Amino acid sequence: MDGRRRLMEVALGQVSPDTIVDNGVLVDVATRRLIEGVFIAISGGRVASISKERQKAGPKTKIIDANGAYLSPGLVDAHYHIESSRLSPRRHAQITLPHGTTTLFEGSHEICNPLGLNGVKYMLEEAEGLPQKIFICLSSATPPTPYETAGAYIGGKEAEEALRLEGVAGVDEVMDYTALFKGEERLHNVITAGLASGKVVEGHGVPSPPQADAFLATGVSSTHFSGDGAKAIALLERGCFLELKPRDSRQAIHELVATDIDWQMVGMCVDDRPAERISQLGHLDYELRICIEEGLDPVTAIQLATLNNARHWRKEHEVGIIAPGRHADILFLTDLDAFKFDRVMADGEIVAEKGKLTVDIPIKPAPAYVLNTIKLRKPLTAKDFEVKTPANSLKVKLAVLRPYYFSADLPPITKELLVEDGLVQRDLANDVNKVAIVRRDGGGMGISFWELGYRHGAVAMSVLHDTHNISVIGATDSDMALAVNRVAEMGGGIVVMRDGVVKADVPLPIAGLMTDRPLTEVITGLDRVNEEAAKLDPGKLLGPNPVDTQTFIFLTCFPWGIVLTDRGLVNVRTGQPVPGVL
Amino acid sequence: MDGRRRLMEVALGQVSPDTIVDNGVLVDVATRRLIEGVFIAISGGRVASISKERQKAGPKTKIIDANGAYLSPGLVDAHYHIESSRLSPRRHAQITLPHGTTTLFEGSHEICNPLGLNGVKYMLEEAEGLPQKIFICLSSATPPTPYETAGAYIGGKEAEEALRLEGVAGVDEVMDYTALFKGEERLHNVITAGLASGKVVEGHGVPSPPQADAFLATGVSSTHFSGDGAKAIALLERGCFLELKPRDSRQAIHELVATDIDWQMVGMCVDDRPAERISQLGHLDYELRICIEEGLDPVTAIQLATLNNARHWRKEHEVGIIAPGRHADILFLTDLDAFKFDRVMADGEIVAEKGKLTVDIPIKPAPAYVLNTIKLRKPLTAKDFEVKTPANSLKVKLAVLRPYYFSADLPPITKELLVEDGLVQRDLANDVNKVAIVRRDGGGMGISFWELGYRHGAVAMSVLHDTHNISVIGATDSDMALAVNRVAEMGGGIVVMRDGVVKADVPLPIAGLMTDRPLTEVITGLDRVNEEAAKLDPGKLLGPNPVDTQTFIFLTCFPWGIVLTDRGLVNVRTGQPVPGVL
Repeated sequence: MDGRRRLMEVALGQVSPDTIVDNGVLVDVATRRLIEGVFIAISGGRVASISKERQKAGPKTKIIDANGAYLSPGLVDAHYHIESSRLSPRRHAQITLPHGTTTLFEGSHEICNPLGLNGVKYMLEEAEGLPQKIFICLSSATPPTPYETAGAYIGGKEAEEALRLEGVAGVDEVMDYTALFKGEERLHNVITAGLASGKVVEGHGVPSPPQADAFLATGVSSTHFSGDGAKAIALLERGCFLELKPRDSRQAIHELVATDIDWQMVGMCVDDRPAERISQLGHLDYELRICIEEGLDPVTAIQLATLNNARHWRKEHEVGIIAPGRHADILFLTDLDAFKFDRVMADGEIVAEKGKLTVDIPIKPAPAYVLNTIKLRKPLTAKDFEVKTPANSLKVKLAVLRPYYFSADLPPITKELLVEDGLVQRDLANDVNKVAIVRRDGGGMGISFWELGYRHGAVAMSVLHDTHNISVIGATDSDMALAVNRVAEMGGGIVVMRDGVVKADVPLPIAGLMTDRPLTEVITGLDRVNEEAAKLDPGKLLGPNPVDTQTFIFLTCFPWGIVLTDRGLVNVRTGQPVPGVL
Repeated sequence: MDGRRRLMEVALGQVSPDTIVDNGVLVDVATRRLIEGVFIAISGGRVASISKERQKAGPKTKIIDANGAYLSPGLVDAHYHIESSRLSPRRHAQITLPHGTTTLFEGSHEICNPLGLNGVKYMLEEAEGLPQKIFICLSSATPPTPYETAGAYIGGKEAEEALRLEGVAGVDEVMDYTALFKGEERLHNVITAGLASGKVVEGHGVPSPPQADAFLATGVSSTHFSGDGAKAIALLERGCFLELKPRDSRQAIHELVATDIDWQMVGMCVDDRPAERISQLGHLDYELRICIEEGLDPVTAIQLATLNNARHWRKEHEVGIIAPGRHADILFLTDLDAFKFDRVMADGEIVAEKGKLTVDIPIKPAPAYVLNTIKLRKPLTAKDFEVKTPANSLKVKLAVLRPYYFSADLPPITKELLVEDGLVQRDLANDVNKVAIVRRDGGGMGISFWELGYRHGAVAMSVLHDTHNISVIGATDSDMALAVNRVAEMGGGIVVMRDGVVKADVPLPIAGLMTDRPLTEVITGLDRVNEEAAKLDPGKLLGPNPVDTQTFIFLTCFPWGIVLTDRGLVNVRTGQPVPGVL
């Protein structure tokens, strides 16, 4: 309270402000208007007052001339996974603050799956003292589905405990609607805890009506949206807060602009973005520009990325608007229509100029509880990846998945494979490869054949949405075993193995997901593993960036159908296991 | 959760709804549009789904034909004091549900000042099972100022306790900005507890900039607004949620309509209204109509009174929109432009038709802890009201207040009064009368002379905003004593006394503020005390309804200046006591 009391005294003119921003054009996101000739007094990192005349400066007051720039609130990402950048939160802040992201609502299931509530603890510790505000949205997806094994378990009791923390803003993206509609106790208990806490229960992948109604009836409030305009309207009408992912919803934005709707229930988010893509594209600033390109008025677009997101998360007294009592997070726009800015202020300090960080964000040593989280019981061998067939025959019928398998029908994916010495063989000439999900705790693995992957070697990684067990795709059982062993030795990361040789690797020792190494080193490493993996995949079945693809192809949420988990193949629409060998 | 799980099953078509509302035009407050031909399935008092086709009905499903009526969400009052109606919450629900008010945010300082947290307990007990939702906003004003004595004390510790309750939505109207700006510990601790709870901290009487900035810097989020358009805009720009009191802010509404602002940060409220005025004017429906009269588009006006208020209080997952998961609170409008409705649904039941209640709302016996809350140590006598002068003279100079005393300057209110036997005398010929505030616990009183009041008899009452001690204004000391004694005997209420005879009285035994007697009896009683009091006041110094006036003239918040409290005259702008006899 002392900070707020002092702020009050500054507003009253009894105490001098730390900083005054002179002469800006305020982008007023409350009324959706521009206000010229505004002066902003700042104290202790928050706004004390806004005024048409300069507030009284003291001898130590710093004056920052806005030179008539448009002053936009710092951007607030409504739904984001820092882990997907592969960077630790503080490294991540170093690269996203220059893009104007001053607040993140961190969907914590990536780190909570390996670490449980220790994942929340780590994120909050990293956020301490950081000019970028990180609010934690507690994982509802630990484990993501009842058909797989995460490193931890978050049920009603654990959710109640975490939701008592001030830094936890609510429950993150309820997305397993199969389990939800089947009434799974764990998931419903987490939602109940969220509602009882008075905080927000976030959704994801909310389907179309009438299933949308069922989803929302449980108390889930929102979705990350990448559908069309008609679905957007249908969800808004049903009281669903819409977090646009603009890059995936250009058409919807275009259609919504034409309708003259009220935008108060619309926000936006980045969701996932690896470090190298942030470097290339930008962050929420990039998404905001897409909205403008699709015809949304720039001030409304700014509302979506600031106040609307903050109000959804019930943090409008903290962030999302340049106003008394809020964090002094300000972007100095040189061009409103193109949303270009040359300075970023966070907590009252200029933290970036012309796209470069201008403050020191020291890296804290990672605490022991986030390190060495991968514990195989013993090193794996080629033998561990054998698929035996009970039949004493030369051929066997199996379920062979395609990389993105969105259908629940089994027959179209049944194939015949050769058997040698009772072991089912790959059919690399026809792109049928072997994949496995190895539990992080060494407790077992699921193996299957897929129509994808590498003609040589193997690629293993501990980034596996959303359980973050170890996935490995390989042309030989021996390289698969060696690649997984190497991932475990590094405490997590990404490994490209060929003929027993490590061709490239990126250690991700923090929860097996992140690193606190400098950005350039990480980008170089990520580029290298993608390049080396691509060499193993001449047919480009895994796309131009095979490593990035591999992180996401084992998702067990909508719209996936049949998926490999650590327990084998599962139809995630029905919850039924799918036998590998038929 | 069971209720929400069942609701989900109804939306999925697995369980039949209790009720389907057929064929209405949905007033969609999320997008600010009208949607024709809508069907609403309801279960357990909440909306399960909305659809363009009728949902599957079961054998017990009730079908309600909307006949093409506009379906508006039930009204949500953002700030209200049930106590000011003089009716218990359940009696009050009986008269306000027919006006379409299905949710109230109850500013609880009236009942908390006499009862402390027992006031919250009583309100929550009354609200249980009521189709009108009552969310409690915890008193920040117990006591209202540091210069007066309430029956209870709510500081940081008490606030933390109350804010843990699910039925408590936040902290109510922080309004004593003298104390706030002076850094009063109690008030700042209550605000801190409110912010830490993640709930809303409501303001009232937020002044103009730069004081507005100081007010908002403390974390206070809103104000009940009755100023002009320029001030409205100035507060909105500063991130203040504006709760219009439309009857007092017609001009502001008119001016705001002309600006084409975004209205998402604007709501509305009734605040205070005695039962007889509710009967005459209406409730929030009346305020909403004023907005339309002043040019606001009807759908936007409905947003202000529904979704916007609900979002401000962070209850949009419960009320404020007809959408899955929310309470099925629906007004069936026959005329959108005039906001006329013939049916009111609350929690899925039609509760009123053509302005009449159609359901039974049983009255619960008042619990012992809200009764007999006025405890004089012994009956008062005329002697207790004597004002002695230390000087042995025939005349004395005194501070003599005018009824609404908004100036902090003392000299203009100094007058000379006659002294007899060492006792200062009234000057009834010049309208100078005697008033007193008697503490409810018999712990003392403050006495003063005012330029107002009665030529005969005395009027006493235990409704005294905001401490709810006993105020008494009288032409004779003897009638003053008798009137106060009678109020105490009744356990609270309003008494008109003349020459030792009770001319009229209204018992208000619940906390000395409310009664659970039927409306007609209460209105008759209130009319009678106003009439009888008016007979004592031929100069109409107290206005046409002197009893109503008397309840409010001892307010210690903005814009009052010098006020009588139980501790004597106080300049509430500075906190300084003002000597009665100079």
